[in-house]
Amino acid sequence: MTETADVEGLVKAARAHDARALGKLLSMVEDDDPALPALMSALLGAGGQPPYVIGLTGAPGVGKSTTTSALIALWREREQRVAVLAVDPSSPFTGGALLGDRVRMQTHATDTDVFIRSMASRGQLGGMAVSTPQAVRVLEATGFDVVMVETVGVGQAEVDIAATADTTVVLLAPGMGDGIQAAKAGLLEVADLLVVNKCDRDGADAAVRELHNMIATGGDREPGQWRPVVVRTTATAAGGIDELVEAIDKHRAWLMSSGEGEQRRIRRAAQEIRSIAVAMLSARVGLRGDDPRLLELATEVAAGHVDSYAAAREIVAD
Amino acid sequence: MTETADVEGLVKAARAHDARALGKLLSMVEDDDPALPALMSALLGAGGQPPYVIGLTGAPGVGKSTTTSALIALWREREQRVAVLAVDPSSPFTGGALLGDRVRMQTHATDTDVFIRSMASRGQLGGMAVSTPQAVRVLEATGFDVVMVETVGVGQAEVDIAATADTTVVLLAPGMGDGIQAAKAGLLEVADLLVVNKCDRDGADAAVRELHNMIATGGDREPGQWRPVVVRTTATAAGGIDELVEAIDKHRAWLMSSGEGEQRRIRRAAQEIRSIAVAMLSARVGLRGDDPRLLELATEVAAGHVDSYAAAREIVAD
Repeated sequence: MTETADVEGLVKAARAHDARALGKLLSMVEDDDPALPALMSALLGAGGQPPYVIGLTGAPGVGKSTTTSALIALWREREQRVAVLAVDPSSPFTGGALLGDRVRMQTHATDTDVFIRSMASRGQLGGMAVSTPQAVRVLEATGFDVVMVETVGVGQAEVDIAATADTTVVLLAPGMGDGIQAAKAGLLEVADLLVVNKCDRDGADAAVRELHNMIATGGDREPGQWRPVVVRTTATAAGGIDELVEAIDKHRAWLMSSGEGEQRRIRRAAQEIRSIAVAMLSARVGLRGDDPRLLELATEVAAGHVDSYAAAREIVAD
Repeated sequence: MTETADVEGLVKAARAHDARALGKLLSMVEDDDPALPALMSALLGAGGQPPYVIGLTGAPGVGKSTTTSALIALWREREQRVAVLAVDPSSPFTGGALLGDRVRMQTHATDTDVFIRSMASRGQLGGMAVSTPQAVRVLEATGFDVVMVETVGVGQAEVDIAATADTTVVLLAPGMGDGIQAAKAGLLEVADLLVVNKCDRDGADAAVRELHNMIATGGDREPGQWRPVVVRTTATAAGGIDELVEAIDKHRAWLMSSGEGEQRRIRRAAQEIRSIAVAMLSARVGLRGDDPRLLELATEVAAGHVDSYAAAREIVAD
C-alpha cells in the first residue's frame, strides 16, 4: 500500500525517468492500490502526450515475445521510447504473474529507453479493461512514445486488448487450423493486422490465402472503413518486421484521418469508467470477498430453495 | 423475447423431452431474455437432479470436439443422457456463435438422448459465469445426467470454466511448448485432469513427463486434496478415452467424499448471484448501452480533463 502523500513524489521521479519509481506506480495499478484514485488525479496534472498503444495477441507458441522483441529493435532505431506490458491471464487462485517470456526480451534489458513489465490482470471486476488504460496513463506521464500490450489469448483476451489498443495485431502460425479458429473467435472483427508468423514453415501460404479469403468474404465494410491487413513474418530472423511496422504506421495514419482514433480513445475511457463504477457499486453492496450474506444466499441457491435472481434482488435491494 | 406466460408451458414441454422447447429455453438464457427471472423461478419448482458438469477446455487444435464426441459415445453406453454446451468466445461486435465444431459431432445427431448446442457467451457483465449455470439449471429440469461444457480458450476461459464445472479437463497436444504455457496460464491450478491428446505424435512422452514434474513441484497440497491427474489419449482413435472416463469417475467420487463438490456448487451459486447483482446495479445507474452522460464523461476523460475515478464517482453518486 502506498501513502497518498508519496504519490506526487513518485510521479515526479517517474517523469525524470526513474525506473524504480515507474515500477512502483505500475504496481499500484496492478494491485488496485487504495491510493490509485489519488495517482490518477495526480497524473492529470503531469501532462505528456498519450503514447501509441499496440495490442499484440495470439495463441501460445505463435511467437509473440520474439515479434515484440523485433519490434522494439525497430522502434529504438527510430529513437522512440518503448514500454512493453506483458499481461498474464489472471489467476484468481494465486493472483500471480509468471515472468517466463520476459527472459526472451533480455536483449533490451540494458536500454534505459525500453521498459518491460509483466502485469497480472485483475480478477472479475475490471480486469484488463481498467488496469491497461491506467498503466498507459502512467507511461504517458513518463514520456513513452509506444506501448505494446502483449497477451496470450484466444477468446476474451483479444476482445479486451482490442478495446484497449490503438492498433490490434493478432499473430497466427501455420498449421493447427488457425484460420478456422481465427474466424471462430471473431478475430477478424478485432484484428487490425493479422500476422502469419513462422513463415518458413509448411502451410504458411495456405494460411495467408485462407485469411485473405476470409477478409474478402467477411461481411460488408462501409467505404473508408479499415480492412484487416495480412503480414508475413519470420520473427526469429526478423523477417517481415519492416513490413509489419509499415502496416502499423498505415493503420495509425488511418486512425488519425478517419477520426476513428479519437472514437476509440473515447470508447476506451467509457469502458474504464464503467468498470470502475461497477467495482464501486459492488463494494458498496458487499459483493467483494466472502460476504457472509452472499454465502448464505448462495447455499440456498445451490440447494434449490431460492433462484439466483431472487437472491440477487435481495442483495441489490440494500 | 418470450412472454412470461409461455415459460411454464415451455418448461413442461422440455421436461417431456421436447428438444425444440429445450432449445427455446436455452435461447432465453443465451439472449438474457427479459423473462429469464421468471424461467429461473419456474425451474425451481420443476425438480430434477443436478447433472454432473464437466468442463473441457484447451487451445485451438488440441482436439476438444473429437474428445467430446468420444466421451459422448462412452456415456451413451452407460445409458446416461448427455448434453454438450459448446461455448464460443463472445464477440461484442456481432454477438454471434459459429457452429463449426458441431459438424464434427454429427455422429450423435440422431440420438435423442444427446443434446448438442452452441452457445454464445454474453459480454462483459456476467458472461459464462452466469449463462452456464443457468443453462445447467434448464438441463437439470429436463433430466440430463451429464453436461459437458466445451470451450476454446487459454487464459480467462479456463478460469471461468473451472468456476462452473464439477470436473475441469484441460486438453493439451504435444509440441508448441504447451507445458510451459500451461504453467503460465495457471492451468495447473484450474485443471482437475490434464489430458495429453494426439499421443501418437512426437513429443507426447516429453509433454506427459513435464506435466508430472510440474504437478510434483507445483506447491504443497494439504493431505486429502486433489492432485491433478494426467491422462494420455488419441481421441481420433478413441484411445485412452476409457482411462479418461475412469479418471473423471475418480474425481467425482473424491468431490463427494471430501465435501468439495458441495463447496464448489455453493461457490458457483455465489458467482452467479454476484454477476446478476452487478448487472442489476449497472442497469440502475445507466451503465449499459450508450448512455449519453457516460459518453460525455468519457470524452472528458479521453481529453485529459477529468480522471476516470472522478468520472466513475459522478456516475455512481446518482
